[in-house]
Amino acid sequence: MAIRVGILGYGNLGRGVECAVNTANDMELVGVFTRRGPATVKIASSGVKVYHTDALETMTNDIDVLVICGGSATDLPEMTPKYAKLYNVIDSFDTHAKVPEHFANVNAAANDSGKIAIISCGWDPGMFSINRLYSHAILPNGATYTFWGKGVSQGHSDAIRRIEGVADARQYTVPVPAALDAVRSGSNPELTTRQKHTRECYVVAKEGADKAKIENEIKTMPNYFDEYDTTVHFISQEELDRDHSGLPHGGSVIVSGTTGVDNQNTHVVEYKLNLDSNPEFTGAVLTAFARAAVRLNNEGAKGCKTPFDIAPAYLTEEDGDFIRAHFL
Amino acid sequence: MAIRVGILGYGNLGRGVECAVNTANDMELVGVFTRRGPATVKIASSGVKVYHTDALETMTNDIDVLVICGGSATDLPEMTPKYAKLYNVIDSFDTHAKVPEHFANVNAAANDSGKIAIISCGWDPGMFSINRLYSHAILPNGATYTFWGKGVSQGHSDAIRRIEGVADARQYTVPVPAALDAVRSGSNPELTTRQKHTRECYVVAKEGADKAKIENEIKTMPNYFDEYDTTVHFISQEELDRDHSGLPHGGSVIVSGTTGVDNQNTHVVEYKLNLDSNPEFTGAVLTAFARAAVRLNNEGAKGCKTPFDIAPAYLTEEDGDFIRAHFL
Repeated sequence: MAIRVGILGYGNLGRGVECAVNTANDMELVGVFTRRGPATVKIASSGVKVYHTDALETMTNDIDVLVICGGSATDLPEMTPKYAKLYNVIDSFDTHAKVPEHFANVNAAANDSGKIAIISCGWDPGMFSINRLYSHAILPNGATYTFWGKGVSQGHSDAIRRIEGVADARQYTVPVPAALDAVRSGSNPELTTRQKHTRECYVVAKEGADKAKIENEIKTMPNYFDEYDTTVHFISQEELDRDHSGLPHGGSVIVSGTTGVDNQNTHVVEYKLNLDSNPEFTGAVLTAFARAAVRLNNEGAKGCKTPFDIAPAYLTEEDGDFIRAHFL
Repeated sequence: MAIRVGILGYGNLGRGVECAVNTANDMELVGVFTRRGPATVKIASSGVKVYHTDALETMTNDIDVLVICGGSATDLPEMTPKYAKLYNVIDSFDTHAKVPEHFANVNAAANDSGKIAIISCGWDPGMFSINRLYSHAILPNGATYTFWGKGVSQGHSDAIRRIEGVADARQYTVPVPAALDAVRSGSNPELTTRQKHTRECYVVAKEGADKAKIENEIKTMPNYFDEYDTTVHFISQEELDRDHSGLPHGGSVIVSGTTGVDNQNTHVVEYKLNLDSNPEFTGAVLTAFARAAVRLNNEGAKGCKTPFDIAPAYLTEEDGDFIRAHFL
């Protein structure tokens, strides 16, 4: 019997999950749930209903796992514990500093209901986290580096859009090639924030806006830009729409460590992503972990988990005999 | 209490495991076990005893996990089921075609004893397998490529040494840069064996040997060399010892797949290893899985597992709170 999936939230990420669920042979999309008026939300899947979130109170017999596609700032801290009381749930919570609190809240709810919640499923946190952990476990005498990009940071793009005089903006995070080379060489360099990444901004100014002032506000913005070498390009809305409408992203987790009686041998492990669509890849990761959540819950497991707690065999639709024959 | 580890077999791999166990804060090396005369085996660790394998019949109360460092052709098919009747065991079985048979034999033994056996722990099979599986689970609409090298293939080096007139040899497997570039571009090329790798051989000929005949025998050797573009360099024993005494290896698992309503977005995932010492890295992987075996068995799990069945959290000495704070 197919795994029955619900999607809560229908932005870019929800659409990414929808694609991945429709690609899976062992899953069925039961419905998309929205806080907006359901009639106003048009989804890509034919024959699948859009519901108001209120319907989730009464559909526990119809859904095996609910994939929660909300933001980490305000949506997920409320939604994930709330729905873990009713469903197996998956989220992509990515506020690193608040993971302990979120984990504790979700764990209490899921233990109470006997359901499983897997939080922080995506690529960072998610696949990058898994790779940081595997490499650390193998090379405890090592250093871990994470590079992001080249790719669009939606948080930084939003930050620019909030500046007075800005009509639209797109920000790319770009790793510094010399830093990547140094890390890949195994030399374990110490790198400052500025040495690891640069930031490239494409900005549409409103008519009559003071571009020099906008550029200065971007470059000096605390946390977002002040610690980076930032380039600002002013372009037209047409150029932005034509050349910067995609959401590519990616990056590398690189661990270099030593082994041997005198630590004389160096090993470099790199996990690298090059993604045309950040939300579709993230949605595909969420979907694989949704499958794992249902399988584990069927075996009696409950409570809050992270990708660290999930054996890879649970993520794919094929069984043990098949994966040993084809992937081992 | 520290995890008490035994190492069975003291070749390059056994020495690699020894280094990794001595690096771990939560492990203690109990002994090295050998089929040779124990007095003839000098190990790197001080204060650790070398035993004959016969001692394993009576040391079940002293060892939490036995890491079996034997060859896949004849050692492991016999040893792993045999010792899974007494101990939690780990091996690096790498004969892909015989995995189902080995798995079944080991599973029967380990289920019987209530112990855990984790087979095929290394980098291929092992970390490469895990990455093939994760990427397939996320991108089921994709293609998987594995490249090996540049690195020393001990099997191919041995095959050359068996040729008449050869005193010594070292063979490097080298991925073809154009093939790597094509795969990394996401174009999903179809590649023949010859297009993916070349083979570079450094050969020491015996005095008076017919070098042209040796070169021809290498290049036409079925399975090992005939499907590859092979280069043969004749060098002196001094040069071989000076320039080719290491055992570096590595390679890449690359999966490229598409997502989106019209499969319009391409994603490329690469896991890449660059290893100074193949046996030391492999030994470090075996050691991490040895830790997982003990933990899982302490939780009541038993039977034969592969790296696919082990959640990453079990591999590292730190606990859940720590790894969520530092690696998620």
